[in-house]
Amino acid sequence: MDELAKSSGKVYLIGAGPGDPKLLTLKAAEAIRASDVSVYDYLVNPEVLAHSRRNAELIDASKRSGHPSISRAEINHLLIERARQGQIVARLKGGDPFVFGRGGEEAEALVDAGIGYEIVPGISSAIAVPAYAGIPLTERGLNSSFTVVTGHEAPGTSHPIDWSALARMETIVFLMGLKSLREVLRGLREAGKPAETPAACIRSGTRP
Amino acid sequence: MDELAKSSGKVYLIGAGPGDPKLLTLKAAEAIRASDVSVYDYLVNPEVLAHSRRNAELIDASKRSGHPSISRAEINHLLIERARQGQIVARLKGGDPFVFGRGGEEAEALVDAGIGYEIVPGISSAIAVPAYAGIPLTERGLNSSFTVVTGHEAPGTSHPIDWSALARMETIVFLMGLKSLREVLRGLREAGKPAETPAACIRSGTRP
Repeated sequence: MDELAKSSGKVYLIGAGPGDPKLLTLKAAEAIRASDVSVYDYLVNPEVLAHSRRNAELIDASKRSGHPSISRAEINHLLIERARQGQIVARLKGGDPFVFGRGGEEAEALVDAGIGYEIVPGISSAIAVPAYAGIPLTERGLNSSFTVVTGHEAPGTSHPIDWSALARMETIVFLMGLKSLREVLRGLREAGKPAETPAACIRSGTRP
Repeated sequence: MDELAKSSGKVYLIGAGPGDPKLLTLKAAEAIRASDVSVYDYLVNPEVLAHSRRNAELIDASKRSGHPSISRAEINHLLIERARQGQIVARLKGGDPFVFGRGGEEAEALVDAGIGYEIVPGISSAIAVPAYAGIPLTERGLNSSFTVVTGHEAPGTSHPIDWSALARMETIVFLMGLKSLREVLRGLREAGKPAETPAACIRSGTRP
């Protein structure tokens, strides 16, 4: 492969937002339009793919838990190979790529392979989903912080949740937390969070 | 005023994103285009106002600390009066309206006045600014949470920062924290955060 072809390829790591396809950014829409191929996760609303050029290739990299799907290594390989062929690649992730979206791992793989990439932040469901439900994460005079936690900890992580510190935090948002709801409630209660703390549970947020 | 005119007005509480005008959402651009008047804060990149209709009115509601500016009550009054006159109002705030943007207070004033409104979430600088600087807020296996804190606590708040709990949290982002940088560092250090904790300080993030 010659250097010219190599240098013309590029990967956009794009946050596709929380669900409502109108919550895509202008920059993301432009990047999708400029791309030869879009590689998208299952949390991405397929309607955002409508910004693709007519002849663009669309690859579903779905990774539903429990279902067979393309592996992480295969996705990285795909992104790298397409960029090396000189293609513009749109890598679409639900929400924001750096908020539990594993965008960091893909960016690292691209750096290691010497592939140019650009991050296009997306509206994170951590903020937008409560907003659509009428719940501001912050309210002047009522809180000074909010904490976002994955409800889906990496197995065998060396940095497990510190429940006793977490229970003392103000607004807390658990992402992907439906499966672990019992565990989350137990963790907070046992760490001393009062039972009367107001709570909301939202699924398929921002969608009709 | 008749009910028809009253019901035709509306306020969009819009997050204009962290600085890069391309990080505006499609929905925000549409709302600005549909508006008769835009009321914008100083953190809003004026380039996003280019989406306004040619004859739309643009009102600067700047509220730089220390400078005379329109008061909160005056802003609320303006939004309510314009909507009552049947106008579509775009209320533009930097980042996201519900992340220390005081969108909740304005939404409350609109509810009290019986004015229809819609929240249009924006890309929060809390996530996008580190992303543009190459810093993912989360990395699988390295952390399970991040916390966003205002560097600009409401005076006399009844909910001051709990430094000892905060110091035990993982990634911590302080917004609007330049002025209070010393205080933030002292708070974390005195609460036991190790001095060798990696840190970055970013201003005018995502802007050229």
